Amino acid sequence: MGSKRVAIIGAGVSGLTSIKACLEEGLQPVCFEQHEDLGGVWYYSDDVRPNQGAAMYRSLVTNSSKEMMSFSDFPFPKDTPPYLPYHRVHTYLQDYAQHFDLKKYIRFGTQVSRIEKTEDFDETGRWEVRTVQTGHSDGEQKEIFDAIMVCNGVFARPYVPDVPGLSDFAGVTMHSQEYRTAQQFTGKKVVVVGAGNSAGDVAAEIAQVASQVYLSLRDGAWVLPRLAQAGVPRDMMLRRVLMGMPEVIVNKIIKGEANARVCHDNYGLTCPADPLKHSVMANDEIGFRLATGQVLTKPQLSRFTQHAARFADGSTVDGLDAVVFATGFNLVFNFSDKSILPNNAEDLSLYKLVFPAELTKPTLSVIGCLSTIGAHPPIYELQARWAVRVFLGLNKLPDKETMLKRIRSDKQELKQRFGYVKLQMMNVPYRDDIAEEIGVKPSFWKLLPRDPKLAFLCYFGPAFSVQYRLLGPHPWSGAAGHAKSALTNTLYPFRSPALDKEQSGLSLAKVVKFLLLLAVLMVVFNHFM
Amino acid sequence: MGSKRVAIIGAGVSGLTSIKACLEEGLQPVCFEQHEDLGGVWYYSDDVRPNQGAAMYRSLVTNSSKEMMSFSDFPFPKDTPPYLPYHRVHTYLQDYAQHFDLKKYIRFGTQVSRIEKTEDFDETGRWEVRTVQTGHSDGEQKEIFDAIMVCNGVFARPYVPDVPGLSDFAGVTMHSQEYRTAQQFTGKKVVVVGAGNSAGDVAAEIAQVASQVYLSLRDGAWVLPRLAQAGVPRDMMLRRVLMGMPEVIVNKIIKGEANARVCHDNYGLTCPADPLKHSVMANDEIGFRLATGQVLTKPQLSRFTQHAARFADGSTVDGLDAVVFATGFNLVFNFSDKSILPNNAEDLSLYKLVFPAELTKPTLSVIGCLSTIGAHPPIYELQARWAVRVFLGLNKLPDKETMLKRIRSDKQELKQRFGYVKLQMMNVPYRDDIAEEIGVKPSFWKLLPRDPKLAFLCYFGPAFSVQYRLLGPHPWSGAAGHAKSALTNTLYPFRSPALDKEQSGLSLAKVVKFLLLLAVLMVVFNHFM
Repeated sequence: MGSKRVAIIGAGVSGLTSIKACLEEGLQPVCFEQHEDLGGVWYYSDDVRPNQGAAMYRSLVTNSSKEMMSFSDFPFPKDTPPYLPYHRVHTYLQDYAQHFDLKKYIRFGTQVSRIEKTEDFDETGRWEVRTVQTGHSDGEQKEIFDAIMVCNGVFARPYVPDVPGLSDFAGVTMHSQEYRTAQQFTGKKVVVVGAGNSAGDVAAEIAQVASQVYLSLRDGAWVLPRLAQAGVPRDMMLRRVLMGMPEVIVNKIIKGEANARVCHDNYGLTCPADPLKHSVMANDEIGFRLATGQVLTKPQLSRFTQHAARFADGSTVDGLDAVVFATGFNLVFNFSDKSILPNNAEDLSLYKLVFPAELTKPTLSVIGCLSTIGAHPPIYELQARWAVRVFLGLNKLPDKETMLKRIRSDKQELKQRFGYVKLQMMNVPYRDDIAEEIGVKPSFWKLLPRDPKLAFLCYFGPAFSVQYRLLGPHPWSGAAGHAKSALTNTLYPFRSPALDKEQSGLSLAKVVKFLLLLAVLMVVFNHFM
Repeated sequence: MGSKRVAIIGAGVSGLTSIKACLEEGLQPVCFEQHEDLGGVWYYSDDVRPNQGAAMYRSLVTNSSKEMMSFSDFPFPKDTPPYLPYHRVHTYLQDYAQHFDLKKYIRFGTQVSRIEKTEDFDETGRWEVRTVQTGHSDGEQKEIFDAIMVCNGVFARPYVPDVPGLSDFAGVTMHSQEYRTAQQFTGKKVVVVGAGNSAGDVAAEIAQVASQVYLSLRDGAWVLPRLAQAGVPRDMMLRRVLMGMPEVIVNKIIKGEANARVCHDNYGLTCPADPLKHSVMANDEIGFRLATGQVLTKPQLSRFTQHAARFADGSTVDGLDAVVFATGFNLVFNFSDKSILPNNAEDLSLYKLVFPAELTKPTLSVIGCLSTIGAHPPIYELQARWAVRVFLGLNKLPDKETMLKRIRSDKQELKQRFGYVKLQMMNVPYRDDIAEEIGVKPSFWKLLPRDPKLAFLCYFGPAFSVQYRLLGPHPWSGAAGHAKSALTNTLYPFRSPALDKEQSGLSLAKVVKFLLLLAVLMVVFNHFM
């Protein structure tokens, strides 16, 4: 078994953790990375790289706090700030690769041009992987692998809405994928389109130099600053205790939190849909830029002319210089048969978003084919850990019919929630579902007799990634200790030195009190205001 | 009486409103403006102008909301955002000048080189004013005036603390006065010194491009974002009803508000002094830049070497590229005898910060010789309105001894509060004190029989500047109407169109409820956390 060879496509976050997962289970990973450096989207370049995927600009800062977004057995150093400018994430990924000696398994500058089942696939589950040197079309090499982990950053095809007249528009048209800095928009009149993280970031940044920025929102936006009350990282709200709450209450809490910073109605952000049925914009700056009039909200775009944009409310912006579409990405699997990995979510048939249900052998997994509100790396890590166990037969998938049934019901749920099959999952529940497959879910009842404090922390405290190294296969000896210090670690670099009495820190009791207070406040607020 | 000629030194905010005040009372103003445009600090130039005064950078945004900072009889247009980038303030001042036809009284490019009492001053109170064309030392012209209004932006001498070794430091040294944009700090390691508005702005802006910013705080900082809970402008808290509260409670409220955004202890901002005894940093961005580690706080500077800075806690920053001192300004009156207007607050002897008490005739006034937490223009306007009435004998000053006694007690109070004579006044109480002199204080009991709603708004609502045009001399016919709509006007440009039901707006009832709720929250928060 140990000699199984696994092809990993891409050395970004999901690729790196897949190499690590292979090594952990004694598999032989070979990772193909088309660029000359690891890191995927976190490997920043001023130029737009072919198949770059995702938006990555100079000012990008993580939306998740450090202890929530780290891999489970490789926490950030204590003196790392809670939110990281992109280059610090890249450094972290390099450190991860170095610490676990992952780099030697990566073939840089090598692009996977095609994957195909071998002729004996039904018996062996093997794949033929064809590669070329990046940028070359000839010199294709073929290699046989026992399994494949698709880690190419699947949301890589920029989506631009089909606005009438767009082709007539004479100004600059750009997708957020191409955006790097605000410089070229100095003194310009710019429309930014979108209600997600990139739209908020780009609009707030351009606003600092543009003559005017308009943020076009189809259905408003729910803006949630990364810093919640008292500067506590917002994602500390991702707790198992809250996951059981009825969605109506969770929506109410999120709305209250969003309105606490800027009343969405008063600031032109009114979003008729509930936050859990819409996208959320993690942003700490847009409220201020709205207050200064540097960003003005507009409804959906209805038409472009040569120098103007018209919006759904009939208003027009004349003398428009540029439009930036921060309207997201579509799926793209350009190296595989459409029957296995089609390029749209509607047709994609992945069991728990990892395994194509139609394959007769479970030797292909897709890592990172989802978005979520909260951190992504711990999810990719769990997907990878699960995938290698399935490759090895340590975990079994259900039969095809059961898988297809689950996929259908998942899709229906997503359709009901978002109006279409949007591959956005609830962070902790999805993670825990995968963790349960592996046997690493931090079960309250299993932990209680061993370490009651830990059990309570895992249930009532933030769902830190380290908690997936407490139980089950491949635990980390440092996990229990780190799980207990993760909360205070989060703001460790800033705390006034005078404060090293526990009483002033971010203790669990405080955070629980704070949450209760917040809940009361929200109820009162919504009731009276 | 109507033929009295008044020399006004400077055509910034205080100069413009002084021209207006002169015209209102039938005086003949002659305003000397050294530059080629009006606006004072709000007239931005990329170069540092001689005697520029104050810090003015491209990204500067007002700290006060529009209805709180406007002149009393010239509100901003309804669709102006609540907070203004600097150039919109400049436009506003130009509009003000145009509306009241002030420009023809301004002699641009003319610098006052000297003012001196005439020989017959003790009878006439007249002044000899000498001027030159800006930049020339010859060709001095002399003119006699009946009175002088000093509107030159008196805090104009950059203060730089005397840090040992500063002269050895090989990097860039700059005062915030010279700061324009962050560009030159790209990729650099920078120390920003100071705990005031400019320090926060400069640190947060440079942080976006620098490799690292350190914010050196002597005694911590109280950071108050402009946007309070729900995005309501913070200065809406400046209400007469709150002015009667004991200072201990006001301090508690301010601390609670500051900590609500980022817990000052957890973010390295711990300030041992109460907010009312310290400066406050109006800033909406620094919290986020701290959370990303792009700004790190440091204590007071203790020493520079060629390439490093050392701090009071013994820590050192090596490879330092630049230091920006956002450490404020000292007084400078460079055109007058030191005996009348000395260059330091300790020796300055101004009755209610306007009239030099030692003069035998009250024909010289200083407009704008103070700082405050809150808007400045309405204060300058009231000072000017009072000054011209004193010039005309419509208001009398007390005798010299009474004035000196008051000045001594004022200074003692300031000394007690700040540790030295810092000319920082409590906004509404100071304004109301001057307004009472003129007879324009919006008295609750006088307004109650005339317009009860207005009376309540003036007492319980934000202390908008328009309220000084309701009673007494030179009322504005639009004042009552505007006073009633100022609150909803503040966020007018953004409100979702669907919301034009009153119920969703910023009604008084809502704001009062909100304030009560906030107070309860603060008490609970401080008690439990």
